[in-house]
Amino acid sequence: MSQRIRISEIFGPTIQGEGPLIGRPTVFVRTAGCDYRCSWCDTLYAVLPEYRDEWSAMTASEILTRVNGLVGNQPVLISLSGGNPALQPLDDLISLAHQSGHSLAMETQGSLAQPWFAKLDWLILSPKPPSSGMETDWAALDGCVETAGPGTHCILKIVVFDEADYAYGRGVASRYPDIKIYVQVGNPAPLHAINKVMPEAADIDDLMERFRWLAGRIVADRWFDATVLPQLHVLAWGNKRGV
Amino acid sequence: MSQRIRISEIFGPTIQGEGPLIGRPTVFVRTAGCDYRCSWCDTLYAVLPEYRDEWSAMTASEILTRVNGLVGNQPVLISLSGGNPALQPLDDLISLAHQSGHSLAMETQGSLAQPWFAKLDWLILSPKPPSSGMETDWAALDGCVETAGPGTHCILKIVVFDEADYAYGRGVASRYPDIKIYVQVGNPAPLHAINKVMPEAADIDDLMERFRWLAGRIVADRWFDATVLPQLHVLAWGNKRGV
Repeated sequence: MSQRIRISEIFGPTIQGEGPLIGRPTVFVRTAGCDYRCSWCDTLYAVLPEYRDEWSAMTASEILTRVNGLVGNQPVLISLSGGNPALQPLDDLISLAHQSGHSLAMETQGSLAQPWFAKLDWLILSPKPPSSGMETDWAALDGCVETAGPGTHCILKIVVFDEADYAYGRGVASRYPDIKIYVQVGNPAPLHAINKVMPEAADIDDLMERFRWLAGRIVADRWFDATVLPQLHVLAWGNKRGV
Repeated sequence: MSQRIRISEIFGPTIQGEGPLIGRPTVFVRTAGCDYRCSWCDTLYAVLPEYRDEWSAMTASEILTRVNGLVGNQPVLISLSGGNPALQPLDDLISLAHQSGHSLAMETQGSLAQPWFAKLDWLILSPKPPSSGMETDWAALDGCVETAGPGTHCILKIVVFDEADYAYGRGVASRYPDIKIYVQVGNPAPLHAINKVMPEAADIDDLMERFRWLAGRIVADRWFDATVLPQLHVLAWGNKRGV
């Protein structure tokens, strides 16, 4: 019998708003549970145990049935997110999804390596910068980088709110010179949230001001290997869930 | 003696705002002159003969010296744009730029194929949809697709303002099933411009409404091979020149 996977939500198809797959139609499979507690986490409902009643324990087959229903059995990009999806037993899901013709991208902070990372089409490692309040376990991150298989695009993505985060991103880039790095504009909405309720409307002026600052910083430093992007889904749909 | 290239402007480094290289630091080399007159052209100053006095005739070596000065001789992505850069003799420029370690992306409507397309790192073909007022020469576009060399990423990019443009994009995708297609939100600012002067401030609400419509359209049709993007530079800097 297949192992159960803790799921927070499955939704889509919608548009991937971040990173190397920005703009691609995708279905999100968000696992529940996380070993981190980032100060600006925008998916606390998939992280904090007090949301446990909203989570489901599903088999790989059940998840795939749900995804296939959402897309009429057409092959699609599946984005595995969390929480930290590396905590879940996703090996069978990846195999089954590939059999249905889907491709799979997973985003994780890189705190735990799993052998099945090698089967992913995209492994997006997003170690958390100082503003998150988290400490990076560099040996664990090295381990994640080493798991990527010959068919896995391994990518780094760093959220940047301030100068300290930016310096952290530069350090990550130096440590992994052969891995493409995406630098992402931080979204302060979660920090502004009171009682864990985020403002639904995004402050687009503020986000674009942050983008201009970050773009200017990167260009001034001639950090030409970086790619700098805002979160497109937040610009389009604000901080709503399920988009 | 090297052939002269008609140049409208060289600027950067800035951030590429469109297509497969969205978010990448780049220097733009914009050639002058165009065989098209798109109704919503946002770079008429590089198209209309009445701007001729603003153009320069430069050698490949002079262009490269300018680019290298802008980036302190560091390797960078050079974005060749226009006008229609396929009208210019860019062969030597591409070779020289590669010798300096730069990579090169060119965007053209695909109305004229050149053998040196095969030397580009990225060939972005953007045939123009009905709203442009232009007719597509499909044989010429086929010819451009066929020029791409083994090291050339060939990409299609379609600007979509309305249903007719969208249908055109679907047709292009059917014709070239093996080429990745980017669908781009149309920017109505040029259409609204009076006396060819564009409003500098972008109407971000309108652009994001167009993005939501286009994303919804693509998702509803389960057109999962497409990538849908707005123009990031317009969101960030409006319709200003030189960004």
